[in-house]
Amino acid sequence: MLKATIDADIFRESIDVISALVGECRLHINESGISTRAVDTSNVAMVSLELDADAFQSYSATEMEIGLDIAKMKNILGMVGKSDPIDLELDPEGRKLQISFRSYRYSISLLDTKTIRKDPNPPSLNLPAVVKITGDALNNAIKAAAVVSDKIALKVDPERSIFIMIAEGDTDNIKLELGKDDLEFVESAEARSLFSLDYLKDMGKVIGRADTVEIRLGIDHPVQFIFTIAQEKGRVTYLLAPRIEAD
Amino acid sequence: MLKATIDADIFRESIDVISALVGECRLHINESGISTRAVDTSNVAMVSLELDADAFQSYSATEMEIGLDIAKMKNILGMVGKSDPIDLELDPEGRKLQISFRSYRYSISLLDTKTIRKDPNPPSLNLPAVVKITGDALNNAIKAAAVVSDKIALKVDPERSIFIMIAEGDTDNIKLELGKDDLEFVESAEARSLFSLDYLKDMGKVIGRADTVEIRLGIDHPVQFIFTIAQEKGRVTYLLAPRIEAD
Amino acid sequence: MLKATIDADIFRESIDVISALVGECRLHINESGISTRAVDTSNVAMVSLELDADAFQSYSATEMEIGLDIAKMKNILGMVGKSDPIDLELDPEGRKLQISFRSYRYSISLLDTKTIRKDPNPPSLNLPAVVKITGDALNNAIKAAAVVSDKIALKVDPERSIFIMIAEGDTDNIKLELGKDDLEFVESAEARSLFSLDYLKDMGKVIGRADTVEIRLGIDHPVQFIFTIAQEKGRVTYLLAPRIEAD
Repeated sequence: MLKATIDADIFRESIDVISALVGECRLHINESGISTRAVDTSNVAMVSLELDADAFQSYSATEMEIGLDIAKMKNILGMVGKSDPIDLELDPEGRKLQISFRSYRYSISLLDTKTIRKDPNPPSLNLPAVVKITGDALNNAIKAAAVVSDKIALKVDPERSIFIMIAEGDTDNIKLELGKDDLEFVESAEARSLFSLDYLKDMGKVIGRADTVEIRLGIDHPVQFIFTIAQEKGRVTYLLAPRIEAD
Repeated sequence: MLKATIDADIFRESIDVISALVGECRLHINESGISTRAVDTSNVAMVSLELDADAFQSYSATEMEIGLDIAKMKNILGMVGKSDPIDLELDPEGRKLQISFRSYRYSISLLDTKTIRKDPNPPSLNLPAVVKITGDALNNAIKAAAVVSDKIALKVDPERSIFIMIAEGDTDNIKLELGKDDLEFVESAEARSLFSLDYLKDMGKVIGRADTVEIRLGIDHPVQFIFTIAQEKGRVTYLLAPRIEAD
Repeated sequence: MLKATIDADIFRESIDVISALVGECRLHINESGISTRAVDTSNVAMVSLELDADAFQSYSATEMEIGLDIAKMKNILGMVGKSDPIDLELDPEGRKLQISFRSYRYSISLLDTKTIRKDPNPPSLNLPAVVKITGDALNNAIKAAAVVSDKIALKVDPERSIFIMIAEGDTDNIKLELGKDDLEFVESAEARSLFSLDYLKDMGKVIGRADTVEIRLGIDHPVQFIFTIAQEKGRVTYLLAPRIEAD
C-alpha cells in the first residue's frame, strides 16, 4: 500500500537521478520512505537512492516492492507544472499506480518485478581519498573533458593537496587542477583511477544541480559520487567502475 | 482586387489557424473580409475561418477567389517582426500577391484555384452538448492524453455536470474531470465521442492561444471547436470527425 | 613564440569569423598581432582577418606560422564562460597550443602548416560603389532572400541613390530597396552583381553582430564586406565571387 503526496520538483529530481542510468527499476516501499538500487545494463554503473517519508508532503505506506517504467514516468512528469503537488496511489493489488495532479488522473501499469534485474549487492569498497566539490564544478569538468576524449582520469595528490582531472585524446588533452580554494579535502590519500566519460556525462547532468558532491576515490578502484536531493531528505550514491588503462 | 494592411501578429495567427490542417487553401475575398473553408487530405478535419474587414488596419477589396500556398506564407512571416504592419496587394490578374513590410517587398505566385479541392459543404450537425473552456486548458488536456494514447474520448455527463476526457492506451490511461469551477456548461446534454489525437494535437496548438473555446459534442458525432482570433474580429471553427470505437 | 591573454568573447568572435568559411587555417603570428587569410574549399569566398596585439589583454610574440583546427577550437570555446580571460601559449617547437581558463588547461595539437592550402593572394579589385549599412540589416536581408531563392542580386542605382537587393525564385521574388535614410553612400556608382546565398548566409551570421559593414560592389564583380571586431582592434574582409547569371 502507498498513498502519498509529493512536490512535483522533488519527484522529478528523484526520477532524473534514476533515469540517468536505467530505464526501469524496482522501488522498495516501506513506512519510512522509498528506495531503489539499480545497475545499468553494462554492469558498469550503479545508482542508489533513498527518499525519506518526510520528503513527501504526506506519506503513508506499508512494505512492498513495485516495478517502475522510468522513461514513461518522465513523459508524464513533462505534463506537470513546476509547483503542482502530485498524488501517488497504488491500487490494492500493486499492479497500477495512480498519479494525480490538478484535475488529471493518470493510471499506469507497473512492471512485473520478476522481469527486472535483482538488486545488486552494494560492493564493499575501500576508497581512502574523499573530496567535496560543488556539483556544478564537477559537471563542468566532465563536459570540458568530453571535448577531447572519451575517458577521464581522476586523481588526488595528497602531498600537493590537489585534486586532478586529466582527459587525454589522440592529439589533445585537458588538465584541471583544483586546490584547497576550490574544494574540501575530507580525507587526503593518494588516488588515481580512469573512468568512461559516457557514464559520467549522464551522471554529471544530475550531479550538476547538487550544491555539494562528495567524491570517494582509490587506486584503480571505482569512484563514488554521494549527494543529497529534496532538501537533504533524499540521498543518492552513484558508483562507477574504473576502466583499465592500456599502456 | 485586394489592397490591405494588417498587423503582423493577426496575419500570422490567421495563417496558423489554416496551416494546422492544410498546406494550401482557397481564400474568398470580398468587401466585408476574407474567408476560407478547407478539409484536410484525409477528410477527417475541417477548418473554417472568417476574418472581418475591420481586423485589418486598412482594407479595400472586390469579390474574388485566390489560391494560397500556406506553407510558403509561413516561411515569409518568419521574417516579419512582431509589430510590423504588412501590406498585401493583389496584381490585377490575381496571379501574384505582393507582401510588403518595412523596406521589403515579396511577390509570390498564387495557386490556380482549379487545382485546389472545392470548398466542402458545411455539414448540418446536431450537437446538443455545449461547454466553454479556456484554450490553454483544452490544449494541456490534449497534450496530457497524447502521453498514453493516440485517441481521446470527450464526454459530458449532464447528471453530475462534468466534462470528462479519457485517453486509454494499451497499459496506461488518463482521465480528466472538469466541473463547474473549471468550465461553463452552455447546454448540458449527454455526449460521448472518440477522437484521434493526431489531429487534436495540431488544432490544440492554435486553440491554446484562445481565451475561450466553445466545444460542441454529441454521441458518436463530430466535435466542433469554435473560437475567435484578431480581438474577436475573426471567427474559427474546427470540426473533427469521430473515430469508431472497436470493442 | 606566443604567450597571450585574451577576453573569451573577443577570441570567440575571431574564431567565428574564420569558421564561417573554413575548418582550418594558417595563423601568421608576429609582434604586432595575429592574422590569417583563407579561401573556402570551392574557391568562391575568402576571409581575411587581422587582430592587433592590443586586442589582447597581454601579448608577446615572435614571428611564426601555425596551423589551427578551427572546428576543434569552437568546441573548446563552448566550455569557456562569457567573461573568462583565456591564456594562450605555444610550446617552443610550435606543435602544441595550450589554452587555459580558470583552472582548466587544454593542450591541443597544431596542424602541420604544409598540409594547409597556401595563403591566397589578395586579388586586385576595382569596386567603385561603396555603401555602409548596419550588420543586422544586411543579415536580415540575406535571411529574407533565402526564403524564396538561392541567389541574390546586389545593386546600386546612383541616379535614384538607392541600394537594391533582389532575390528571384522560380515562382516568387523579393525586393528590398534602401535609400539614404537606411544607409550611407560612401561612393555612388552603378553596380550590379549576383551572389550565391549559401555563402552569404554563413557570412551573414557573423556580419549581423557588426555595428556597421562596408559593402564594396562593381558590375559582375566580387563583393567585399568589410567590418571590425574586438572594439575596432580587429579588421575583417569577406570577399565573395559573383555568380554568372544565365538568361
